[in-house]
Amino acid sequence: MTDDIDQLAQLLGQKLVARNWTISCAESCTGGGIGYAITAISGSSTWFKQGLITYSNDAKQQLLGVTEQTLTSFGAVSAQTVQEMARGAAQSASAQVAIAVSGIAGPDGGTPDKPLGTVWFGFFIDGKSHNIKQLFNGNRQQVRLKAIEFALSKVIRLIDSSS
Amino acid sequence: MTDDIDQLAQLLGQKLVARNWTISCAESCTGGGIGYAITAISGSSTWFKQGLITYSNDAKQQLLGVTEQTLTSFGAVSAQTVQEMARGAAQSASAQVAIAVSGIAGPDGGTPDKPLGTVWFGFFIDGKSHNIKQLFNGNRQQVRLKAIEFALSKVIRLIDSSS
Repeated sequence: MTDDIDQLAQLLGQKLVARNWTISCAESCTGGGIGYAITAISGSSTWFKQGLITYSNDAKQQLLGVTEQTLTSFGAVSAQTVQEMARGAAQSASAQVAIAVSGIAGPDGGTPDKPLGTVWFGFFIDGKSHNIKQLFNGNRQQVRLKAIEFALSKVIRLIDSSS
Repeated sequence: MTDDIDQLAQLLGQKLVARNWTISCAESCTGGGIGYAITAISGSSTWFKQGLITYSNDAKQQLLGVTEQTLTSFGAVSAQTVQEMARGAAQSASAQVAIAVSGIAGPDGGTPDKPLGTVWFGFFIDGKSHNIKQLFNGNRQQVRLKAIEFALSKVIRLIDSSS
């Protein structure tokens, strides 16, 4: 994808292996790109067992256990949804770490409240949730690549800061 | 990823929309790359609802219903496994079409029977299964890209030839 993403995925693997942890992911707007970046790393089967591409709301509910109430009240692109996605991804995979991504990559779907490029990230690290919103510039492909890079970069920092 | 892959994903979407069908995928060695290629297409949420990255054997069993007997008798890289993966992916998503991929991208894992670059593809098209083996040259990244391109290209031809 990009050299930066490749290096981040490699570093992530080292951090996880050192802790004997595994990671899972639940991807909406990135559509499998985080899984693809992770599995580009030879030997990633040690620390990555499964990922879920939950593009529709039904998939978010059925595969990850996101509640209908959360989706109705806050929308698919929200802190609440990515938090439930990340927890669901970790539980489904029995993983210590999970990344969830839901955003508006464009070209359609932007609103005044949630403009194009809005991406919510949910991280689940050893039992604790962290949710972060970012606003990325660029076209659909650029927003998705930036989201993948941000997710990998951030999860490494969160793993580092988890004692 | 590549222009060819992008064009194939676009064409696949047109074929599916024309039939009012949806597609799902179950990815092992491609690790989410097919989902990523599909969701690169704007509007793909109409015809793609979910995908499953089943990197481990446990994930293949739990998320897709591949039997332990199949994995033990034939291995993860086999016609039998990808057939069960594809059927499981279609059923989980209530999709008419599914792609499953399981292969040996390298650099490790090759055997005399299943050398590096061996990839099995399972296609499930409107109730019918088609399983195909390919042997790709190249390094890990090249094998994965060739597998993604082949999967998209082949599923289009199978959809075309399904009456």
